This record gives sequence, structure tokens and C-alpha cells, in this order.
Amino acid sequence: MKVALLVAYDGTGFSGFARQPRARTVQGEIETRVSLILRADVKTTGAGRTDAGVHASGQVMSFEAPEGFPLDRLGQRMNKWIGPEVVVRAAVEVSDAFDARFSAKRREYEYRVYRTEVPDPFRERFAVWEPGPLSVSKMRAGARALIGEHDFSAFCRKGPGSLVRRVRAVRIVPAGDDLTFKIAADSFCHQQVRSMVGLLLDVGTGRRAPDDVVAALASKDRARAGRVAPAKGLHLVRVVYRPDPFAGRRRS
Amino acid sequence: MKVALLVAYDGTGFSGFARQPRARTVQGEIETRVSLILRADVKTTGAGRTDAGVHASGQVMSFEAPEGFPLDRLGQRMNKWIGPEVVVRAAVEVSDAFDARFSAKRREYEYRVYRTEVPDPFRERFAVWEPGPLSVSKMRAGARALIGEHDFSAFCRKGPGSLVRRVRAVRIVPAGDDLTFKIAADSFCHQQVRSMVGLLLDVGTGRRAPDDVVAALASKDRARAGRVAPAKGLHLVRVVYRPDPFAGRRRS
Repeated sequence: MKVALLVAYDGTGFSGFARQPRARTVQGEIETRVSLILRADVKTTGAGRTDAGVHASGQVMSFEAPEGFPLDRLGQRMNKWIGPEVVVRAAVEVSDAFDARFSAKRREYEYRVYRTEVPDPFRERFAVWEPGPLSVSKMRAGARALIGEHDFSAFCRKGPGSLVRRVRAVRIVPAGDDLTFKIAADSFCHQQVRSMVGLLLDVGTGRRAPDDVVAALASKDRARAGRVAPAKGLHLVRVVYRPDPFAGRRRS
Repeated sequence: MKVALLVAYDGTGFSGFARQPRARTVQGEIETRVSLILRADVKTTGAGRTDAGVHASGQVMSFEAPEGFPLDRLGQRMNKWIGPEVVVRAAVEVSDAFDARFSAKRREYEYRVYRTEVPDPFRERFAVWEPGPLSVSKMRAGARALIGEHDFSAFCRKGPGSLVRRVRAVRIVPAGDDLTFKIAADSFCHQQVRSMVGLLLDVGTGRRAPDDVVAALASKDRARAGRVAPAKGLHLVRVVYRPDPFAGRRRS
């Protein structure tokens, strides 16, 4: 039977999500534990291959488990072993056709910035300190250029295949001295969110103009996008499937 | 001249606040940096000697600095060196009579608990997971016994001197799936807050009765109070002085 996991993690101590031979990764930890519990060599698929230091509250993984395996205590047993850095929020049976990566309709990321006068030891782990003036309206103007289907070569690390992606939304949400970028796309290429946020923050501070976003996108030149925002501000918050395998199970 | 610092720290990586010869402590880090900046061997006084793993958003420290030393950039310079685990929120000149410890009129601590169905990697560092049923009304009933001036021997690690303390308030504040104990006293003895919270949580889960708080207090017997709640949930949030040396400087 096919199983889907809803997973949250503090990415600080991991060399990223994706399994690697000699590094501590989220997928590696999960696979080790699932394999021990299921007494089988389990390989998983993840919805988003988050980089080293990136966090997730809504990562999704899928794998094949022995028929009839009781799922009700799987999450609990895994959480006891892994500890609170990586938490299985839900484990559910899904249709055989489900694949955490290829069935995903949309990925939603948040990039978190905070703007207190001095750094805050209690926000530093999961957000980036940006104390200076930051124009939300300029960032919103810049962000408009990113919506829709584009070749995001300027915002992506080169890889095999097309870098055309469809960005559905870039919302910039201030709340007190927090500021959150909420970015949704069908899928993202490597470092896309952090590159987009890096450029938008430069637009916000005035180092770049809103029109530079249009120009960077059109150039398809990675050097034009500028800096990649630090990993620790980035969170994979939700992966959308139809139907939602975790309907009613998302509140933790 | 006398200087007072308002200091915040993530206590996770420290062997407590108080200076120790061969351990990484908050006071040790601060003294090393202040001494380098002031080019003098500076010894500080702290308002609360928080234990290993305990956090603070409002610790206060005082020390003697060379006359006329410019304070405006002291905090900034220290923050650059120490990094976001320990942050100087404000540095102000105070009267010669000021002493962070002996001038303090009241200390305010918070103990943070959260109650989601599964552990939350984003709250784990600064709060304690208590997933089971917890009766706020029973905890409030138990807490009433702690208000006022009492011999807190049952809730304190034995030390030299009296263990009589005056507790001004124990408020239990639920907010969504967070629950915060807000506890104020003129001063606290060692482990008092965590012992009080440990017993109140046992009252909340039903392992102990509200009347056990009265009995434990009256017994003056440390064994009667029961468990000491984990350090990571505890935060020193404010130290009260009259006048407030940081008036208008507390918002970070």
C-alpha cells in the first residue's frame, strides 16, 4: 500500500532534505526510521527538495509499505525516535497512483523576515533580521513581474531541463515587526524562492529598482538577479494535492 | 560611571548565566566583550542567575565603566561580536547607587508550554510540549496558595540564608495551543519557578490535587513539591526598577 507523510522540520542541523550518502539529511533520517519500523528497505519520494538550513511545516513524503501495515501508531513511533527536530504530523494511506512529488499541484513557501531595532535571539533561527527601512509598496511592485509563467533562468541554479515555471502568487504580508513573503507556484526550480526574495529585499531597501525585476527576468541571466536570501528564513509550508490526503489532519 | 545593560539570550547553548571558570556562560561572554571594548577588566552584576538552558528577554546587568565612555554604540559593537544568541537590547548610564541585583524591586518570569497534538519543531526550543488534558482551573486553584510571603523551602534548592520569598502573582494564560505561566516575585530562590510550575502542571494533569500545593508549601520539604519543570520553557522577561533605567527603550 502507498503511504503519505506530512512532515515538519527545523532544518538548521541538516544538510538539506534530500538523501545523501554521508550527510545528515531529513529524508535520510526518515527513511532509516521507517525502514526499521517496517522491517524493509524503504525509499521515499519528497514533494520539495529543500536546501541545507531550509525549514518545513508541510513537507510531504510518500513510500510503498507492506499491505495492511497499521498506520495509526507509525507517526507516534517515528516521533519518539527522531525527536522534535523532525516531526511526522500525520501518516495516511493514499491511492497507489499517489506520488508526493509528481501528484503535487502547487507548493507554498514562506520567507520570514523581522524588523526589530536589535536582533532577536528568539526569532533568529527561523527568520532573517532586516532592520533598515524597507518599502513594502516597492517590493509589491517588483513582485508583480514574477507572477505567471516565465523562464526563471535568472532566478534558478542551472539544472537539466526547462526552467519555465508558473508562479501563482507572491504576497508580502507585514504583521507588527514581522514581514512574510508568501509565494506559491506549481513547482519551483532550485533556489528560485530565495533568489526572488533576495532581489525583492534589495528593491525594498532601495538598492535596486522595481523595474530591475522585469529586467532580470527578461535577461535570463543569473548574475542579474543578484543575491540569494539566506536559507534560514525559508519555510515549505504546504503542498497542495487534489484530493488532499491530509484533509482534516493538518492542524497539529 | 555606572552602566546598565538590558540583555536577551537564547540560553540553549550556555551553562547558565553566571560566570564560571571553564564553561560558556552568558555573563562570561558579556564580560569578555565589554572588557575588550572598554580595555579594562570589567566584572558585572546580573539581576537573575538563570540556570543552564533558561532564556531571557529582559535580563539586566550593571558594571562600572571609565568616566565619559560613549555608550551610544556599545550595544551595537557588542552585538556584532557576540552574535544573535546573546543580544544587548539597550545600554544606558545609571546612578552610581544602581546595582542590577540589589536595586531590583521585582523579577518577572514566564514559563511556556504548548499543547499541539504532535511536537512542534518551531516551538520546541523555547517551550515544553504538554499534549495531554490540562485543567487550567485546577492549576489556578493550586497557584493561589503560592501568592504572598512564604517559606519556599519545598520549592527551592537549599542554599545559605532564608528561603522566605514574596510571590506577587501567578497568572496562567492560555492562548490558542500555547499556555504561559506568568510569575512575579520580589526575588526568587534557586529553581523556585521551575519547581512551582512542575507541581502546577502535575495538578493540571490530575496527577496531584490542588490542595497538594498548600501541603507541599506547609511541609517545607523539597521532596513534597515533586518535579522541576525543564529549563527550556523558562524565560526571565522583566526586572523592575524604580525609576526604570530603560524607560522607553524596552521595545526591541
